[in-house]
Amino acid sequence: MSRTVQLVLHYDGARFAGWQRQAAARTVQGELEAALERLCRTHVPVVGAGRTDAGVHARGQAAGVRVPERWTPTELRRALNAVLPRDVWVCAAHAMRDEFHARFSAEARRYAYRVGTDEDAMSPFRRDRELAFRRTLDAAVLDAAAASLVGDHCFRAFAVKGTAPEDDPHRCIVRSAEWRPRAGGLDFVVEANRFLHHMVRFLVGTMLDAASGRRAPGDVVRLLGAPDNSEVSAPAPPHALYLDGVIYPAHLYLSPA
Amino acid sequence: MSRTVQLVLHYDGARFAGWQRQAAARTVQGELEAALERLCRTHVPVVGAGRTDAGVHARGQAAGVRVPERWTPTELRRALNAVLPRDVWVCAAHAMRDEFHARFSAEARRYAYRVGTDEDAMSPFRRDRELAFRRTLDAAVLDAAAASLVGDHCFRAFAVKGTAPEDDPHRCIVRSAEWRPRAGGLDFVVEANRFLHHMVRFLVGTMLDAASGRRAPGDVVRLLGAPDNSEVSAPAPPHALYLDGVIYPAHLYLSPA
Repeated sequence: MSRTVQLVLHYDGARFAGWQRQAAARTVQGELEAALERLCRTHVPVVGAGRTDAGVHARGQAAGVRVPERWTPTELRRALNAVLPRDVWVCAAHAMRDEFHARFSAEARRYAYRVGTDEDAMSPFRRDRELAFRRTLDAAVLDAAAASLVGDHCFRAFAVKGTAPEDDPHRCIVRSAEWRPRAGGLDFVVEANRFLHHMVRFLVGTMLDAASGRRAPGDVVRLLGAPDNSEVSAPAPPHALYLDGVIYPAHLYLSPA
Repeated sequence: MSRTVQLVLHYDGARFAGWQRQAAARTVQGELEAALERLCRTHVPVVGAGRTDAGVHARGQAAGVRVPERWTPTELRRALNAVLPRDVWVCAAHAMRDEFHARFSAEARRYAYRVGTDEDAMSPFRRDRELAFRRTLDAAVLDAAAASLVGDHCFRAFAVKGTAPEDDPHRCIVRSAEWRPRAGGLDFVVEANRFLHHMVRFLVGTMLDAASGRRAPGDVVRLLGAPDNSEVSAPAPPHALYLDGVIYPAHLYLSPA
């Protein structure tokens, strides 16, 4: 008999070639499957809620596994943390109904992009974890741009070409999007039913350009629904982006999450 | 003509064999001297306010250099940050009077030891920067132990043997010492005129043992003034310790710091 478990993961993306298993590169999925094989003595496929790019971090990625029933979620979590490398960590494990699928069951994902605006943002304790941005930002432009994203829009202008089939409408339903001030900087926090390839990084790059006078303040709104990505700014770098959570329907949990 | 400059430094101690230059190991002083030699085309000795051990971090170490007068502090800071490795960073540079000596002029040093007490303290974003401590801590024991350190005491019980000559009284004048609660944990913050070798780590190790029932609650007070270190707990690990600041007399600064 097997048991379906959701793993909630933190990882530091710096030394990973992203989430998805590759033959010749170190990936989060690859490390998890190697650890599970060591514990379960058989290959256990790991399904992620979404793929993160090289360098992108997670503080709440979700993954689904089926393991032999002798592994309770708590014991699996402890055993995995004992064998996983230091840059991946299972912060929670939940027993799930068998119909749970980490990718297809997800209702929404939440990302945060951390921007440091003070002098110390280049400190070794921060430079690999947030974007040091020293030009003046117009908060009203940032706030208006974020607010314009909420709702059901075509995000073709903010996605790598080929990220989805050409006839896919590239629509994403953004539940919330806002810039949150904090000590030393501000974070862009966005939750949507799905994200296209590089979408958050393209959005942040374009918003920062618009709010710092490098392009027109209204460009983000103008590009929403544009037919291609020819006018987007360069994507903001990956080291400041965090997949912070994946939301599933409550009925898929066997016990309260 | 030369100019005396105080450099204020942040460094991530993880990949350094400590502050002090060594022939065959990577050290902070060694990296700074290599960077300065590249900029000034001559050997520039770097004097640190104090030596930090392998693995110990700094968010305010101070160092003194004499550089050719053409280098203003601001230009020196920028040029150093452009050539230094990513784990060392000059956060400020001040023009000083020539009698400034980074070690002998210092009135006090301030250290912080970060302890994480929540579940997430093992996250890859925290485990290399604070001590994950999961046993229950008695805050009253911690507070009483910290308070007992303030004043002029012999710290021989909390120092590596041989750290100072046998006839040195091992006295340190502690200006302030306290445990400060914060989200996810608490930090021990201590300021003194000098610190003996491993002193903060021995103090933290002993206080944590006393506050978690591994030894008597009053042991820290009892050991103050003890003739040797035979009863001290194991030193707390270095990766959670930060040299946070060095205090100099105001008259040594050529302009307000």
